[in-house]
Formats: sequence, structure tokens, C-alpha cells
Amino acid sequence: MANVDVVVVGAGVSGLVAADRVRAAGRTVVVLEARGRVGGRTLTEPVPAVEAESQPLPDLLVDSGAGWVAPDQDLLLAELARFGLTTAPQTRPGDALMTMRGKARRYTDAARPFDPVTTADVAQGMLRFSAAAEKVDVEAPWRGEHATRYDAQTFESWIRRTCLTIKGRDYFRLACEAVLATAPQNVSLLHVLFYARSGGGLLHLLTTGGGAQDARVVGGMQQVAERLAEGLGQWVRLYEPVSTILHDEDGVSVHSESGATTAHRVVVTVPPALASSIDYLPGLPQDRTLLTQRMPHGSIVKVHVVYRRPFWRDAALSGEITTDQGPTKVVFDTNPSDSPYGVLTVLVDGEDSVRLGSMDADRARDAVLRGLASHLGPKAMEPVGYLAKDWTAEEWTRGCYGAHLPPGAWTQVGSALRTPVGRIHWAGTETAERWCGYVDGAIASGERAAAEVLALLP
Amino acid sequence: MANVDVVVVGAGVSGLVAADRVRAAGRTVVVLEARGRVGGRTLTEPVPAVEAESQPLPDLLVDSGAGWVAPDQDLLLAELARFGLTTAPQTRPGDALMTMRGKARRYTDAARPFDPVTTADVAQGMLRFSAAAEKVDVEAPWRGEHATRYDAQTFESWIRRTCLTIKGRDYFRLACEAVLATAPQNVSLLHVLFYARSGGGLLHLLTTGGGAQDARVVGGMQQVAERLAEGLGQWVRLYEPVSTILHDEDGVSVHSESGATTAHRVVVTVPPALASSIDYLPGLPQDRTLLTQRMPHGSIVKVHVVYRRPFWRDAALSGEITTDQGPTKVVFDTNPSDSPYGVLTVLVDGEDSVRLGSMDADRARDAVLRGLASHLGPKAMEPVGYLAKDWTAEEWTRGCYGAHLPPGAWTQVGSALRTPVGRIHWAGTETAERWCGYVDGAIASGERAAAEVLALLP
Repeated sequence: MANVDVVVVGAGVSGLVAADRVRAAGRTVVVLEARGRVGGRTLTEPVPAVEAESQPLPDLLVDSGAGWVAPDQDLLLAELARFGLTTAPQTRPGDALMTMRGKARRYTDAARPFDPVTTADVAQGMLRFSAAAEKVDVEAPWRGEHATRYDAQTFESWIRRTCLTIKGRDYFRLACEAVLATAPQNVSLLHVLFYARSGGGLLHLLTTGGGAQDARVVGGMQQVAERLAEGLGQWVRLYEPVSTILHDEDGVSVHSESGATTAHRVVVTVPPALASSIDYLPGLPQDRTLLTQRMPHGSIVKVHVVYRRPFWRDAALSGEITTDQGPTKVVFDTNPSDSPYGVLTVLVDGEDSVRLGSMDADRARDAVLRGLASHLGPKAMEPVGYLAKDWTAEEWTRGCYGAHLPPGAWTQVGSALRTPVGRIHWAGTETAERWCGYVDGAIASGERAAAEVLALLP
Repeated sequence: MANVDVVVVGAGVSGLVAADRVRAAGRTVVVLEARGRVGGRTLTEPVPAVEAESQPLPDLLVDSGAGWVAPDQDLLLAELARFGLTTAPQTRPGDALMTMRGKARRYTDAARPFDPVTTADVAQGMLRFSAAAEKVDVEAPWRGEHATRYDAQTFESWIRRTCLTIKGRDYFRLACEAVLATAPQNVSLLHVLFYARSGGGLLHLLTTGGGAQDARVVGGMQQVAERLAEGLGQWVRLYEPVSTILHDEDGVSVHSESGATTAHRVVVTVPPALASSIDYLPGLPQDRTLLTQRMPHGSIVKVHVVYRRPFWRDAALSGEITTDQGPTKVVFDTNPSDSPYGVLTVLVDGEDSVRLGSMDADRARDAVLRGLASHLGPKAMEPVGYLAKDWTAEEWTRGCYGAHLPPGAWTQVGSALRTPVGRIHWAGTETAERWCGYVDGAIASGERAAAEVLALLP
């Protein structure tokens, strides 16, 4: 009695990949998306001009969502190749800047920016972190050798115990915020170890050239979702938030804005915290309910500041800034190679993002510009374009980059993350074993979920 | 243009108290309740007979929800007095039983059940805990002297650092599970300190005579909600789950099953994690969104096992059992004083509740009975009545006793817990300063929210 073989909830990258693979296997599929666009946490946008906000700057698109590609993200690279999309390297000529505890340093990419004592402390911390991460089972983090012990404490507890210097501690705190968009006291040590291992190691996640921030997609990351959606055509339905999923031995009935869609199986790809807002009849098992209550999102405001030209290059600066002073803690020069503009991407995360999100727009912009000017000089106060994307305020996302697990969750209820409940399957980057939290992980999860349902379709 | 002055979401104790106080002040109110009953996390029920499950045992009601009254819960005692409800003491004659690490002990209420070394360890732990709790500001836990440090770690980290013996550690772990229905690695140290202080201290929360389990309501706790609802009459509307709250400068419009109710103000009393499933237009501030993602619920299956008579009294046992062996870790004799039955209440919490919830009904019952029999002998295998209430499986509760805060949440976004958002006010026991998590706290929160809206009504 099914309308289609499979319903996919959510037209982010994972959902579109799942649908694409189901269709490629000759089965029918419908994707129901709450928003009026596809792409989920990828979003490529024009930047409004400062002079006239209704006017976007011509010939410029930026990634307000996920933006980088790593050289070992094979699945994402394959998808880019399939659609003829190209990448441009992130690395910029010139020195990076780092300010910690009021002390400013210039450094080149190859060198670490610390004094010798801090460098030694960070190095021993990294070694210990890597040794612990080696023991984590990325396929089943609740199972590894010291899982229970690692999961009983916060990452902040580990930092305080492991690092011997104030700046060493600050470095790992900043690393946690940069990678997970949340403070180290919010996260289980086990989760940080898992997450780092999942993406090839903590240093790999923090690196531009050769690392997780190696390159950017020319024309923007959202094109991946758009091309996938083009292939699916009418089978992607926008403005269809899903309210209820009925499921029994015979099939599923997925209720959204325009009515019910019946299918043999459903793949729910929205983040776990949002998936818990859907009514399931019958209800989900205890461990699933408890898990989705314990996967809060990071919080980030991704800001793009556009200048007439990349003036920092005159001072032989790369535009990369790292500092312990919010709101401009993490800054990259991201202007497309063919553009005359100077474009800075500012990642405002954790508590800074809450503070910024509570300000009115003018005050928030002023705080960001002043943060940039303190590193790059007064020219930073005069942008021609400005765009701030507050992902926590997005009804259908509620926080980026993604969900993290507080202590206890992985070892007590983590096995419910990917385990299908009857005819309900779970995808989304949070469910990935490799590159969890990244676009590559989203693709992996969509492929895994598609394989699950294809193996079970009548 | 308002239908009524105030809409209250949720007919638990806090919502009914809020509505009662608003009405008493001469203003109009409607309470919208998702379920077909009032009472929320209070629920007084008959017990099905083992022989014929459709037949309830005659002349017996048990509290599957909140059940105890403390002598210093003034607000609850006042409400009981108002409705002519009486209490009966929890304390039973005879010895209690404790089994830890395979070692069984009998003890009287006054004495602690440990060997001298463990007793000393527990005592020094309690002293340190109390000293730290003294520093917590119950009105604003994010503000106290060492708030940031306490909130950066799990309670489990504190236990490992503070206790010197294995049994001492086990004691505090069990205490955490008994009080919060969740394991110590799931909770911020700051939250446990706050929660204990809020209810008069950790020992007070763990105590029967004179403590949080001092007495029970004759006829059951749910009567409080029922009497409040009787007073409100037609203004309590059942089967009305709220889906959307529109709010602006002119008022609110609360959308539920049967349509929209407009009002000047709305009081949302459901637990924060459930409150986040309502759509708010416009959306809520960042800190509120992040907070409700970080208030997971404890998990408990509250089991009542009824015997023909309280046979354990023949062996001079009180029926109180504490053990580190699930599923019967915490057991009380709770039969009403005028009843010939023997009634045991088994609190199956945390991971044990997940395990029990995933078993079929027969296996789960067998596991509970075997746990009781290991302490009370083979007669425990032959109950005449059995009732298990899995609160995590309840769509409109999703876990009891209530919500707890993992590390980081109180100090980063805790101030959003009670802060009204425009015309939306928050109540529920989780928002209480005193007796947070208890019925008394629910009443306090309802009174506070009523005072808030009454002061602002036109």
C-alpha cells in the first residue's frame, strides 16, 4: 500500500545522498524538507552591501554553512568530481596572528606560535590526547578499552589534569571551541577523543593546508546539495516539516504539511535533538529517547566581512587570526581566488555566539569589526559587505556545527544513535563513524542508511 | 482581544497551582493539558492483580508518580491542609537491608550500615560535599563563588577525587541515582550541589523519617492536582497538546488540538526538554534554545509489587532495601496503614531502567521479583499484584523524576531557565529554587509564575 519505497526526512546532504542512492538502485523515494531550500547546514549566499542592505555585493558568494574540504575526505571529493565542482586551496601567503593572554605573535603556518615552555606543554598534551584517542573504537565508542573512564569526565577535567601551563590549557580550550563550537566543560572526554579520531586526529582537524580546512569549493558548498536535488527533481518536496511518523509491521506513514506519505521505510536525517520533536507512534525505545535528550548542539554565528580589497596582504598577513578574545577568536581569509574583494570569515562560537546573538545587529557588527581592527588595524572598521548567520536561531537547525555528547551519554545510550527502530532508519553527519560532524560524514551516513533500507525493501 | 487573561500549558501541579492563583486574583485562565488526565508527574493508580490483569486489586491505590512529603515542605503541606488531605509516616518498624559489593548488612534507621573505614570515608565525603554546597547560590547557581569550577566537572569526577574507598564511592553513586535518577557521570557537580542545597542537603534528601521521604499522602499524591482541577472546573481542558505559541507585543495565541486560545500572557509549565518541542513564533533567544537542549531527564521505572501480607515484617525487616545490584537498588515498604496488603515500591533508575524498559513484561517482572527474593526470601516470588510505570516511555513526560544539568549548562545558559521571554513565562519544578525536582518545588514555581503574570496583566 506504499506511495513510495522510501521516505527521507530532511534535504540536507545526508538526506539527498540517501535519496540519490535509493533512486540509483531503481527504487522510489520522496524527500520531505521543512525549509524552502535544500542543503541543511550547507548554505551559499550573497553578502548584503553595508551601504544598502537590500543590495547584495555583485559577483560574490560565501559559505554561511560548511565550507571546507580535506584531502582525505574521499566521499566529498567523489561527489564534487561527479558534479564537475572544483576546489581552491585555503592556504594564503603571509603570516598568521595569534593573541593569547594579551600577548600577540606573528607566525608562519609551519611554526607553532608559542614560547618554548608552552610549545612543550601543548606537545605533551597532544601526545597524550592522541594516545588516548587511539584506544577509542570509532564504530562503537561505548566499547573501547577505557570508554567508561573517558566518558565519566568532561574534556575540561582532562585539560586541567593534563596541561601544566595556563597557555597550554587555553590552547586546548580554544581547540575544542573551534572544532565542536562548544566549551570543553560541555563535552565528554570520550566524545572529543571519538570526534578527533573520526576526522583523522585533533591536529588534522585544526589544520588548513593538508587538514580539515585544506580547500574550499569554488562557487560554494551548497552546490553539492543543489546538484543532488536537481537529479531528484520533483521527489524533493520543500516546506514539508514532518510532524508524525506512524510505523508498524506493514510500513510507515509520514505526516507532513500537505498530508501523509506512505512507504516501506523512512530515513530520518535531521539532527537527533530535532528528530525527537517528531511524534512517533508507537513511541521510540527508552535508550533512543534518553540519547536524543543528551545531544545538544554547538552554537555558532558565522560572520562574513567583506572589504574592497584584502588590505592585510599589504602587511604580509594571511588573514588567519587565533585569539582568546571573543568575538573574533577564529578568523580566516576566504575570498574566492577570482574575486577582487577581501573576505574574512569569522567563526563566533560557544558563549561568544550567545552574547553576539543577544545584541542588536549594529552593536554585534561593531563588536566584530573592533575585534578585527585590534589585529588588522583601523581599515578593518570599513567593510563594504557584512553577513552574520546565527545557526542557533534557525528553527530547523538550532545550532551548528552539530551535536556533541556530554559525559555519560556514549557509554549508556550511545548504541541507540544508528540502530534502526523497526522501519525507521537514522542518518545525518552525527551518525557517521568517519568525519562525524563534517559534510563527508553526512555523505557517509546517507550512503549507509540507503544501503540499510535497500537491503530490506521487499 | 484576549479570550482569557492567562493560558497555562500543562495541568501538572505547577500549572494547576499557577491557574488557581490567577483565578483567585479574579483573572481568567485556561489550562491546556496534552493528556486525558491532570497531575503530570503525580499519578495515583490501582494495581492490576497478577492472576487476572484486567482486575485491579480492591481497596488499594499506589503512587506511580511522586509520593513522599517532607516535614519542611511548607507549600505542599499547606496545599494538603487546604484540601483536608492527611499523611502517614513512611518509617516502618524493623531493620533495613543493604548489600554492597556482595556483602549484606542489616541495620536500624539510626545507624549507618557500613564498616568503620567506609563510614569514615562517607562522613568525610558528606562534609566536603556540604561545605561545597554551602557556596552555591540557589537563586542563581551560575553566580556562586566557585560556580565555574564546580560546573566544569561531573559529579563522578568529584566522587573519584574525594572518596578514598570503593564502597564510599559506590555510596555516592547510589545516592546520585536515588536522588536524580541518573548516573553521576551525567551530571554537573554544580547541579548536584545546587539540587541538594535546594532540598535542604544531600542527607535530608536521602532520609525517610524527618527527611524527603518522611511521609506519604493518604489516598495518594495525585489528589492535590485533582482537587486543584476541581476548583478550576471547565477551565482545565484535557487532550489539548500545544503545538505553537505566537507571541508579540499585543498578546499570545496558543494553538492546541481544538484551535487557538488568545491571552495576555502564557505560562509554560512542561519540563524544558518538552517545552522545546513547541514552536514559538518568533523563535526564542539563543540561550533558551541551548539550555533546553541541555536539560535531559532522569529515567525511572517505578514498580509496585503487592503481596497478600507484608511477610518481611515477620523477620523484623522494615522492607527498606539498598543495594548496588540492579534492578532492585532502592526499595521501600509503602503499603497504606489501613491496608492488609504488603506493598513494596521499587525505584528502578538510570541504566537499570533502560534495561528493564527494553525487556518484555514477563522477563522484567521476573528480574524484579528475583531481586526482591535475594533479600527477602522466596516468598517475594509470589505477588498478588504488580504494576510497573516506565516514565521514559510516557510521551508527555519522557523521563522522571525530572531534568538535570550536565556540566557547563548552569554557568553558560542557566539564567535562561526562569527568565520570561516577552509574554511567555516558565514554571515547573525544574524552575524552583527551593525543593527543585519535588512537588513542593512545583507548587513554588506555579506561585512564582502566577505572581509574575498578575503583576503584568493590564
